[in-house]
Amino acid sequence: MEFADVVTARRAIRSYQDRRVPDSEIEQLLDLARHAPSSMNGQPWHFVIVKSLKTKKALAAIKNKFCPTEKQAYPADFLEHAPVVIIVCVDKSRSFGRDVENAVFASSHILLGSHNLGLGSVYMSAYTAAEPELSSEIRKELNIPDGMEPISILPLGYPKGSIPPKELRPLKELMHLERF
Amino acid sequence: MEFADVVTARRAIRSYQDRRVPDSEIEQLLDLARHAPSSMNGQPWHFVIVKSLKTKKALAAIKNKFCPTEKQAYPADFLEHAPVVIIVCVDKSRSFGRDVENAVFASSHILLGSHNLGLGSVYMSAYTAAEPELSSEIRKELNIPDGMEPISILPLGYPKGSIPPKELRPLKELMHLERF
Repeated sequence: MEFADVVTARRAIRSYQDRRVPDSEIEQLLDLARHAPSSMNGQPWHFVIVKSLKTKKALAAIKNKFCPTEKQAYPADFLEHAPVVIIVCVDKSRSFGRDVENAVFASSHILLGSHNLGLGSVYMSAYTAAEPELSSEIRKELNIPDGMEPISILPLGYPKGSIPPKELRPLKELMHLERF
Repeated sequence: MEFADVVTARRAIRSYQDRRVPDSEIEQLLDLARHAPSSMNGQPWHFVIVKSLKTKKALAAIKNKFCPTEKQAYPADFLEHAPVVIIVCVDKSRSFGRDVENAVFASSHILLGSHNLGLGSVYMSAYTAAEPELSSEIRKELNIPDGMEPISILPLGYPKGSIPPKELRPLKELMHLERF
């Protein structure tokens, strides 16, 4: 697809068809992720690809357990219906103190790339400063070694149903010339 | 351009032609930024567009002042030669504790969108946990109010010279099936 069409039409997708995602498409998405910018070109990413129902259910349970009150409108149960879940981790020895930035740039390429392939995804956090147990339980479930930080959880699947258009704030409200 | 070509060909650009960037292109980029995902659809972004040489020099000086030792191979002096510098801020009342994630998603759209328009940019941080003064000096320079957090600094310009291809880590090294 044309670049700007991908960026403007991508949406958060939490409902998926019961249809396999080919490995070739998963690899295409991780290849795009690998082209993300990174601090000092450290390329600190590691990607855990989960397809096992048992593991997806465990991840959903961990996310629900640490879900803050204000986000409880978005339970994580849908994770088990995603054919694939990708966990984006960062190698702290290569991230120059910018774990989140590095992981989010790679995640952005995966979210956009998914839409480009007709897939859907949604960004979920694998850590929170308020509850260090969130990432330590994910780390235990996925056998993530010390020195590697899980930052995001990205389910992947073919979207089921349609999503109403998103209302965006007017650009004029967000732009400031020279000073805020 | 085709989506995957933009993602794979984008590079960090720190050298710019002496050529004006039309306001219409700046607005196109901020429109793409506004389509980024955000926590709870909070759309917390604010963008400060700087063209004044005096302000660009001040931002470069602030960045250099707080540059950590290991990043001193990348001084910020080039900022003053960028025709435009965009500072991405986040309204903390709309960011649900995810200032960095929200700002980096918007920044990712700007970096990719720049390449799509033949422009170049590079990601620079406007804050660091180790030196809170970095963001407070930027805030003072740009009159950024309390409650708004400057997260990134994105220079924009037409690239000067060419950039050698980047060597990427092999995907096989970064992929893990089911568990790390």
